[in-house]
Amino acid sequence: MATDKTSPAASGYVQPEVDVRALTEVLDGEYAAIRDLVRTNLVTHASVLEEADELGVDAYRERVRELVVEMAATGQTGMGFPAKYGGGGDVGASIAAFETLAFGDLSVLVKVGVQFGLFGGAILHLGTGRHHDAYLPDLITGKLMGCFAMTETGHGSNVQALGTLATYDAATQEFVITTDGDQARKDYIGNAARHAELAVVFAQLEVGGESKGVHAFVVPVRTGGEVLPGVRIEDDGRKMGLNGVDNGRIRFDGVRVPREALLNRFADVTPDGVYESPIENPDRRFFTMLGTLVQGRVSVGGAGVNAAKVALTIATKYAVRRRQFDAAPDTEEQLLLDYGLHQRRLLPLLARTYALHFAQDVVRTHLHEVFSGIKDDAYERRQLESRAAGTKALGTWHATRVVQECREACGGAGYLAVNRFAALKSDSDIFTTFEGDNHVLLQLVAKGLLTHYASEFEDLDQLGMVRHVTGLAVETVIEKTSAHKLLERVRDLLPGGDEWDQEAGLRDSEYQLAMLRYREEHMLAGVARRLKRGIDQKRDPGAVFSQVQDHVIAVAHAHVERLVLEAFVDKLRAQPEGGNKVALGLLCDLFALSTIEADRAWFMEHGRLTVQRSKAISREVNDLCRKVRPLAVDLVDAWGIPPEMLRAPDLVG
Amino acid sequence: MATDKTSPAASGYVQPEVDVRALTEVLDGEYAAIRDLVRTNLVTHASVLEEADELGVDAYRERVRELVVEMAATGQTGMGFPAKYGGGGDVGASIAAFETLAFGDLSVLVKVGVQFGLFGGAILHLGTGRHHDAYLPDLITGKLMGCFAMTETGHGSNVQALGTLATYDAATQEFVITTDGDQARKDYIGNAARHAELAVVFAQLEVGGESKGVHAFVVPVRTGGEVLPGVRIEDDGRKMGLNGVDNGRIRFDGVRVPREALLNRFADVTPDGVYESPIENPDRRFFTMLGTLVQGRVSVGGAGVNAAKVALTIATKYAVRRRQFDAAPDTEEQLLLDYGLHQRRLLPLLARTYALHFAQDVVRTHLHEVFSGIKDDAYERRQLESRAAGTKALGTWHATRVVQECREACGGAGYLAVNRFAALKSDSDIFTTFEGDNHVLLQLVAKGLLTHYASEFEDLDQLGMVRHVTGLAVETVIEKTSAHKLLERVRDLLPGGDEWDQEAGLRDSEYQLAMLRYREEHMLAGVARRLKRGIDQKRDPGAVFSQVQDHVIAVAHAHVERLVLEAFVDKLRAQPEGGNKVALGLLCDLFALSTIEADRAWFMEHGRLTVQRSKAISREVNDLCRKVRPLAVDLVDAWGIPPEMLRAPDLVG
Repeated sequence: MATDKTSPAASGYVQPEVDVRALTEVLDGEYAAIRDLVRTNLVTHASVLEEADELGVDAYRERVRELVVEMAATGQTGMGFPAKYGGGGDVGASIAAFETLAFGDLSVLVKVGVQFGLFGGAILHLGTGRHHDAYLPDLITGKLMGCFAMTETGHGSNVQALGTLATYDAATQEFVITTDGDQARKDYIGNAARHAELAVVFAQLEVGGESKGVHAFVVPVRTGGEVLPGVRIEDDGRKMGLNGVDNGRIRFDGVRVPREALLNRFADVTPDGVYESPIENPDRRFFTMLGTLVQGRVSVGGAGVNAAKVALTIATKYAVRRRQFDAAPDTEEQLLLDYGLHQRRLLPLLARTYALHFAQDVVRTHLHEVFSGIKDDAYERRQLESRAAGTKALGTWHATRVVQECREACGGAGYLAVNRFAALKSDSDIFTTFEGDNHVLLQLVAKGLLTHYASEFEDLDQLGMVRHVTGLAVETVIEKTSAHKLLERVRDLLPGGDEWDQEAGLRDSEYQLAMLRYREEHMLAGVARRLKRGIDQKRDPGAVFSQVQDHVIAVAHAHVERLVLEAFVDKLRAQPEGGNKVALGLLCDLFALSTIEADRAWFMEHGRLTVQRSKAISREVNDLCRKVRPLAVDLVDAWGIPPEMLRAPDLVG
Repeated sequence: MATDKTSPAASGYVQPEVDVRALTEVLDGEYAAIRDLVRTNLVTHASVLEEADELGVDAYRERVRELVVEMAATGQTGMGFPAKYGGGGDVGASIAAFETLAFGDLSVLVKVGVQFGLFGGAILHLGTGRHHDAYLPDLITGKLMGCFAMTETGHGSNVQALGTLATYDAATQEFVITTDGDQARKDYIGNAARHAELAVVFAQLEVGGESKGVHAFVVPVRTGGEVLPGVRIEDDGRKMGLNGVDNGRIRFDGVRVPREALLNRFADVTPDGVYESPIENPDRRFFTMLGTLVQGRVSVGGAGVNAAKVALTIATKYAVRRRQFDAAPDTEEQLLLDYGLHQRRLLPLLARTYALHFAQDVVRTHLHEVFSGIKDDAYERRQLESRAAGTKALGTWHATRVVQECREACGGAGYLAVNRFAALKSDSDIFTTFEGDNHVLLQLVAKGLLTHYASEFEDLDQLGMVRHVTGLAVETVIEKTSAHKLLERVRDLLPGGDEWDQEAGLRDSEYQLAMLRYREEHMLAGVARRLKRGIDQKRDPGAVFSQVQDHVIAVAHAHVERLVLEAFVDKLRAQPEGGNKVALGLLCDLFALSTIEADRAWFMEHGRLTVQRSKAISREVNDLCRKVRPLAVDLVDAWGIPPEMLRAPDLVG
């Protein structure tokens, strides 16, 4: 690296040694065994990365199906199901396995997600014993393939407004499933075009002429490869990516299924047509059902973070091999990663990837505790749903951003299909949309923050609710503000000025956390105040909401970033002293300060950052980049991505 | 749209009527005829959009070649060549044609760029009569296909460091072309894998054992479809996109070409081996040669802007059809474009697209004037090269960002290959890299700003140069600062406060321009000062540069954005009064204020923006979005994209 002995940054700082193996252990955590199994399976089947390019769509789909079944046989994909049906009985492990699978071909990942997460998860969580006995053993092995028919052409994120009908016919004790117009056809359904024999269909239940809201039904759609009568299936055709997954459209022309086809954990219909549910409020019932499917979001968020790791590993290794331009006359050309700009492009993303990894650990653990009954009540479930929505949004946006930046950082070579960026980019692009559009998810997070319970938002008297929340938030903010102001004023008085090595508390985690907490609370109070003002002025609620919508997204974003930083800081504090702790500390500071820097306009606008301190943060970020630079290869190696998965012969050798 | 009568924004503002046809005339400008020819050709060959998905790589490549030849026959692709060889003799028209072609399949676009822009342009601008007579007639019709063999595996942006050798053998009066190691193989060369018969090869010229720097040679590589002896060609294989273009790698094993193969406009070798050039300084000679190829950058920048238009048109039309979620109980679901967030996501991008369109007009006109000899001297060429580099970088990054945002704004439907985003995204991705990596191009812009001539930067005594520039810039800044400060202080005293309708000069173009000019000058002075300090401290120049590199990129970015705003403001002022001028005024303000908003942290850090005013700008951006909302469809229609090119049946009907 281009060392510069006269830089003030060099003084007094000792570069840590990273113990890569030990760091991998920290990252893999309690799920090292299942992650290693997945790594082994990925290497065994590494040829699928080439096959994805070489095979036509039909052959590629079949190949992916084969692989999924082979992986299922190793126990990798069934960790989330009860042991009595052949599963592993460990929800957390099932998520960890899925995350690790994202190092490899993403069609395989998504097919696994569709079969075991969405389809299997719906049977498990919305069904009862009769469904479990009938379907779980064969679906866990992959012998019985299914699909999850929720999204319609006309409705994606707004599941409550789906158009498919399920009408109870008491005379025959059957439900009649009907696609009510083109907008109600099921669309983009993975496994539908070719492989699914069963579909879990979400439809508006009508009993005795009365609408009961969206419920899920098991509907056979195919047998022996033939589509069943009354079912029409179209192929969605080629997609931007994930062409190893057979997405399709399904229409139902009055398909009859027995009364027992209703997945009846939360509601049932008696033979003579009486609707029964232990949850009285229809909204709450709907959100309870949906809430059991939260593992899909947790899975996709984690997969996004791991896809980002693959891209960053390739770009980092390329940047320590590739030289371009001589920095000074008569010298060798300089390595890309020794350029300050290249460090700025890659290293804050590396730090954020670590941060999101540890945040994913927290949400995975939370999911495990809730779904294993260790810590399960309504409050925990709401917290989990909010957290899952938020980390899914941030994790998948991060993936899109990282893959793009890393491709550009590898130039023309990054564009060749033989290197992995082409596949990574096109395959991961949809992560920001599926399992809930990220913007919609962040609104969900914000609603949760505003009301402490998303589903009650619509029900409460809006004005009363807003007043309540406003009062609460404003008080908290005022109380905390004075403490913070004092703290900051004191710190600004510390010696520091323009020198990089005098940090004046910028690298104090408490300071960083205080900043992110303040931002969240202030934004929350602001949104509540705006809503209240709009309602006080008796303006059209749609217009009021539309006008605060960007603030709503911003508060959710701020909330999730605060959770991510807390997760990183907690993890850091739990580490034993040593080189790895120092290295993680650099990354944690880089994440925190680059996050504050990215939103420094807001902090200045709200009196939380002086101009001098804002500039000092930018300098500190640059300095941290320089310190992380010599550790970068170790830090990406610690992710333990099998070299076969990098598949970038021109880039990493 | 969700109107809101009580909004203060509504008061006193009359929504303009957009005359779409007249606006198209403004946008098409003097090149309406050639643009319409291209539109007609695009519609005639619209099936290629489907074929791109359906055909295998080999068949798609052949199809694209056919199309290029058919388009050439209409005169569309030869506008830039002299009439005496069958061209159109109008450089500006050739760029306009290329820009318009970017509405269609981008493999066709890039194949046209390779054949007529890169290959044909090199023959035209680096060659002399003997080359023109020999090659232009057949290359203009597409009968003679060629490639432009500049980039090597080891060297992309740093062309001066290429490894291919061309050694003059006086005994036989031939050049011997040799690939000197793996890193020197030509790579990613369009037309190389299949179709090129000739290559323009850039190589280090050696005459009498002395290196003369990079020069270009015409080298036959293939005849009758067979690769010639001494030439080895590999296929680059599948790429992320642009699979209708046959990119390949070329190696030369001592291939001999006659002395006349040297493209000798700027340098020649006499039969007995004396090197001659009218330009003495080798760096200047090199950059003069490279400078003649500037049209490639102008073309790609314009193509990026037009690719962005296609994506925005689809997303805008989708957003006024698609409803999702009811904003209030008992109402119809709301159109996507009536959501404040959706407006925020799409409409500033729409405004920026208009701005970049008008900036492209300026650079195209400048290119036309320089290359038609209307206004051609060294100063004009430097200005043009800098401007072309800058608009190429901003235009292509804009394309990447817009395509991504629009795909996400169209949800799952945007992911299907049958809609255009898949192709747009994967095909346009490389625009940020080819014809010069965007970061490298912005460094070029910055160097030009720092020294008023990039090629002299290395030669000058660095300290002296920096002192000179620093002095100059600081004086200018100080002078302008006082004027600006006064202006802003006065404006901040105007009534305004928190109301959206009291604009206090924010929408004054002079204010907006002053802000962007101030930013540029201040940043320039800052970079110069940092360089000087580093050199004064006798630090390693590589490390000094590495540490200021992000500032270098920022100043170039600020410079180009200032040019873009000036182009928009100039265009706006030239419009006759009426609805279109009002609409363009909204867009110009939206571009300017969202640009300032995006960098408001910088403006606050540098005392150019008070907290109150910064917040007022954000409110103004929101208000402008609401005002542009009802005009959005007209504004995208005015781009005149043939409906066949949208190819998004699920999205725009």
